[in-house]
Amino acid sequence: MTTEQIVLAFRPKGMPTLSNFTFESIELPEIQSGQVLLKGWYYSVDPYMRGRMNDAKSYSPPFQLDKPIEGGVVAIVTESKSELYKKGDVVLGFLPWRQDMIVSEKDIHKIDTSLAPAGYYLGILGMPGLTAYFGIMHIGKPKATDTVVISGAAGAVGLVAGQIAKIQGCRVIGIAGSDEKVKVILEEFGFDGGINYKTEKNIQKAVAELCPNGVDIYFDNVGGEISDAVISNLNFHARVALCGQISLYNSTEGPVGPRIQPMLLTRSVLMQGFIVGNYQDQFPEAIKQLGQWTKSGKLRYTETIIHGFDQLPTALLGLFKGKNTGKMIVEV
Amino acid sequence: MTTEQIVLAFRPKGMPTLSNFTFESIELPEIQSGQVLLKGWYYSVDPYMRGRMNDAKSYSPPFQLDKPIEGGVVAIVTESKSELYKKGDVVLGFLPWRQDMIVSEKDIHKIDTSLAPAGYYLGILGMPGLTAYFGIMHIGKPKATDTVVISGAAGAVGLVAGQIAKIQGCRVIGIAGSDEKVKVILEEFGFDGGINYKTEKNIQKAVAELCPNGVDIYFDNVGGEISDAVISNLNFHARVALCGQISLYNSTEGPVGPRIQPMLLTRSVLMQGFIVGNYQDQFPEAIKQLGQWTKSGKLRYTETIIHGFDQLPTALLGLFKGKNTGKMIVEV
Repeated sequence: MTTEQIVLAFRPKGMPTLSNFTFESIELPEIQSGQVLLKGWYYSVDPYMRGRMNDAKSYSPPFQLDKPIEGGVVAIVTESKSELYKKGDVVLGFLPWRQDMIVSEKDIHKIDTSLAPAGYYLGILGMPGLTAYFGIMHIGKPKATDTVVISGAAGAVGLVAGQIAKIQGCRVIGIAGSDEKVKVILEEFGFDGGINYKTEKNIQKAVAELCPNGVDIYFDNVGGEISDAVISNLNFHARVALCGQISLYNSTEGPVGPRIQPMLLTRSVLMQGFIVGNYQDQFPEAIKQLGQWTKSGKLRYTETIIHGFDQLPTALLGLFKGKNTGKMIVEV
Repeated sequence: MTTEQIVLAFRPKGMPTLSNFTFESIELPEIQSGQVLLKGWYYSVDPYMRGRMNDAKSYSPPFQLDKPIEGGVVAIVTESKSELYKKGDVVLGFLPWRQDMIVSEKDIHKIDTSLAPAGYYLGILGMPGLTAYFGIMHIGKPKATDTVVISGAAGAVGLVAGQIAKIQGCRVIGIAGSDEKVKVILEEFGFDGGINYKTEKNIQKAVAELCPNGVDIYFDNVGGEISDAVISNLNFHARVALCGQISLYNSTEGPVGPRIQPMLLTRSVLMQGFIVGNYQDQFPEAIKQLGQWTKSGKLRYTETIIHGFDQLPTALLGLFKGKNTGKMIVEV
């Protein structure tokens, strides 16, 4: 059969554009024993993918030129030569951006769509939810008296991180990129305060005013000047969970800024870079907890769903312009 | 009786000079019950004192203008109205820069000069030794396969930190400010490699060559460009113990440099600022271990001793020019 795939045509310098992606028609072979044929249903777009477009050492290897982009995909089994899967099963995997694909039974696992909608497994019960959980619980180690600041607060990870901190009893301040997003985190997700970094002239002062007792935990998704402003408000023994640096992903020169080590030193601050894979052995426990919170209504979830396989590159580029509230996925 | 003291005349901008200090004669009152009269013997000069000369929030409060500088002092009891101390006792305290001083029995404790020379209690068995111990053991958490880099390697803390890492079986590379210091760390203190940052043109490359398996632990005493060079060589899951930033203490503007968070993030690095006081409850255990290593010869110790109370300001300023190898103290 013929299907379509999206490959990396060339590596971007700075902000990627649609021209970095090429749509191709390919012919799929016959499926073999132990394989299944899948039709993609939900495709995840995530900020970390920008890093994989570079040819640089990082926690995940670079995308290869002229090969399909890969990411989290929820798909439906349309044909099976595996004893583990039957037609109609809904599965999750780290899969190529193809409309139809043949994969080994080893590269996917079944998800239970009676527990949560299929798309949730790319968000609250998937990588972004787990990332928020481990950053807050294992690095932040929140106490009920703590003040927590979340940058990228209206993003897939930030919304969950802020709510988990609220569940722990903390005062939670979010930083986001529009008045609408600030309204959402305050009114729909229970944050105690919000800052629109695009209109706020003095973020450092705004953080200080919203955090009269200083900042104990900073969950950082964005880096750059927003982080400078938060870091200058950190308390003695504060914890910084370094989750993302989206404001810097498209910079073409090595980004420069105030040196932070003197501040970290004089205030005995812990800063920990992390990726969710570091906590793989604790995934089941975390998914269980996230599921319980979601079911009981303590944890609310929102998605931005874009429709159409051909919209995948546009959706990914949209992340860097803050087009999403909550997790962004593409439904086919 | 009349004695002499050294007060902070005005706060320095940038590098301090002798004019920031004033020598004064003062009259001491009669000593009261619960007090002792001390004669200073060894006075500690330490890089952190530069921070206390500023009027800025930090882990220890600013020195007050026209009040004596304070620091670690080993002194001899010359008169006692305390039941805890008798004439001739050798004591340690956080005390003013006075030749003779009246202090409460609560502000000092006795040291055992039969176990180690009195000056050691300002160094290997005191604040610098403990700082090295906790930075390496509690933040670095060394494994025998680790590569450890120490900046300020020939300083009071660095020499001990490097040796403790060697005791743990690590490969240890030191960065110091002269060929002589590099020779000392290699030949006398067993470091595996050394870099003279003043003559080495490409520190990043030099670190890479001496650390072919990358850097697992960075014990940072200096900050600035030397740290940039080390940080770019960090391994996945590396640990950075932020102990000092001496290269920045005298900068008059907020220092600027490459943003480090992207590197910490993509390599899941832990960076922890600390001061020795954070580990106060574990001092006895650490002093015991340091004492054992010193006694068994596993841990060598060197001091730079300057003579004369009037040399105290000069000795302190000398730290910022790298005049010391190992711990610098002033003997009166």
